[in-house]
Amino acid sequence: MTWDKTMPERPVVAVAGATGAVGREMLTVLEQRAFPAERVVALASARSSGKCIPFAGGELVVQEMTESSFEGVDIALFSAGASISARFRDAVTAAGCVMIDNSSAFRMDDDVPLVVPEVNAGDLSRHGGVIANPNCSTIQLVVVLSALAGLAPLKRVVVSTYQAASGAGQAAMDELYTQTGDFLAGRPLVSDAFVHRIAFNCIPQIDVFLEDGSTKEEWKMVVETQKILHEPALRIAATCVRVPVLRCHSEAVAVEFDAAVSVAEARAVLLATSGVTVLDDTAAREYPMPALLEGTDDCYVGRLRADESVAHGLQMWIVADQLRKGAALNTVQIAEALLGR
Amino acid sequence: MTWDKTMPERPVVAVAGATGAVGREMLTVLEQRAFPAERVVALASARSSGKCIPFAGGELVVQEMTESSFEGVDIALFSAGASISARFRDAVTAAGCVMIDNSSAFRMDDDVPLVVPEVNAGDLSRHGGVIANPNCSTIQLVVVLSALAGLAPLKRVVVSTYQAASGAGQAAMDELYTQTGDFLAGRPLVSDAFVHRIAFNCIPQIDVFLEDGSTKEEWKMVVETQKILHEPALRIAATCVRVPVLRCHSEAVAVEFDAAVSVAEARAVLLATSGVTVLDDTAAREYPMPALLEGTDDCYVGRLRADESVAHGLQMWIVADQLRKGAALNTVQIAEALLGR
Repeated sequence: MTWDKTMPERPVVAVAGATGAVGREMLTVLEQRAFPAERVVALASARSSGKCIPFAGGELVVQEMTESSFEGVDIALFSAGASISARFRDAVTAAGCVMIDNSSAFRMDDDVPLVVPEVNAGDLSRHGGVIANPNCSTIQLVVVLSALAGLAPLKRVVVSTYQAASGAGQAAMDELYTQTGDFLAGRPLVSDAFVHRIAFNCIPQIDVFLEDGSTKEEWKMVVETQKILHEPALRIAATCVRVPVLRCHSEAVAVEFDAAVSVAEARAVLLATSGVTVLDDTAAREYPMPALLEGTDDCYVGRLRADESVAHGLQMWIVADQLRKGAALNTVQIAEALLGR
Repeated sequence: MTWDKTMPERPVVAVAGATGAVGREMLTVLEQRAFPAERVVALASARSSGKCIPFAGGELVVQEMTESSFEGVDIALFSAGASISARFRDAVTAAGCVMIDNSSAFRMDDDVPLVVPEVNAGDLSRHGGVIANPNCSTIQLVVVLSALAGLAPLKRVVVSTYQAASGAGQAAMDELYTQTGDFLAGRPLVSDAFVHRIAFNCIPQIDVFLEDGSTKEEWKMVVETQKILHEPALRIAATCVRVPVLRCHSEAVAVEFDAAVSVAEARAVLLATSGVTVLDDTAAREYPMPALLEGTDDCYVGRLRADESVAHGLQMWIVADQLRKGAALNTVQIAEALLGR
């Protein structure tokens, strides 16, 4: 199935899940980038219906999302969870609306492009009404790997993540704050959004466990990276860990190549890559850090160095704002790519 | 030089740096393990002289450490920083006292054994008065690697650390608390113990930078692991990161072997290894976490799984209390080994 509806120059845009952490950030990004929307519609569950959200100098009144919400809408940015996306998919596309989905519902479907515009915008040419936004921890990794793969074929990637609370939503961010305050005050701790205490802790589990002992988050990093890079056999070992950080994910990455790649070559390529900022001055103790990069758009790379433990290896440290490039920004960038911007 | 002084059955023990985070923990461990000391002496800088520290139901009065402090002392447990260790080394050994040093001052010296008793207690037979305690992040790694190396030769190790504030001392632990409270209250943040803000942040720098772009902490993990395991060519890639956690270090580890090692074999060996506890029940969401393991003695291993990205690979997650096995406990265990306990 190929989509044959032409996108208007000024599309009507719906944000589905507008009151969540990612939904709010989508509205912020649409406004900040002056996305040429004819109109923006904020959709959420009945519970949030009637709420007002500031937008572009005015405000949007949140509407309850129903199957008829997509009539007259051209692009729907979804961030309301995988089951909601699955439930509304047919209603969205039947209305002639393109769904850009931030959930994991369709990412690995053959007929759904999984897109990071800097990396594989070309895949958008063959969508059938649904385009998937990759997992947050995948996005910041592939932006960098894709650039480096131009220097030599990738052989193996070992990545350990340091993921922020924001990846689990607004309630999780609130829980990190509240629980930390309770801990400092010696009050009893309540864990709802996370399976264990997150305050002053590291939780080596994100999403559910699979049969092979990995988590679904780790599996996503492997298969999504392979799909986006068009490298189905790329070897990737991932460990995904939640840390008590608000909204930027960090990743320690060891990349093995098939041929020699020098630090200088890698740095030069990354400096020239759109969407990447190199922040790497060890003499000045300068490197990417979550506390430094909240609200930023790029994938930040530092700690770039040779990995002498393999023939052709590099190590690096990648940080990006999970709510921006890891979610809302990338979704809006996909919409921009559909407009040919 | 070989040490020829016989250790008495009930040695006099000095703790140098007794008011620091590790020094206090050394006293706690000596007491908890009923170390057969004839007497325990608490030494610190002039500034702390006269302070009282509770010990074994009574208290110790802190004495100023001078070159004459070691007369009549049999074992001195040092945790006062590398420059202090270097300054007092000759005075200690000239007094016939064995120095067990927790700093990095002598770890890589050829005539100084670097010891984790479960792994290489045999190296103690050739000391010359000084024995070094390894770096905290190294200790918990080698305890596990040493056990696994019995199954097949180690080929390459990739490790990313999630290191607690305690590794930087008591002032750093205090800074994490104070700064987090200030952050939640919207007060200005003060960073002294860490080079950057630690509250709700990850800092990918521990210790100073070296010429090759690695940090000294990362270098320590490589060379100390090689020395302790007697594997000078073992290939190790390390990334060391400070996280806002109080006192347990976590490590995401990918181990590549020269021959096949199954998860079941690895689990069986680790279950049988002294000093290791396997905490690995994904169905029950059970795995090691810093918040769970403060004050414990073992190296805890979980998230044990096959690494399909290499021929013979395993991945795992290791957590240990940095102040216990990572520092004070291991130092006292070395002293116990000297007594032949």
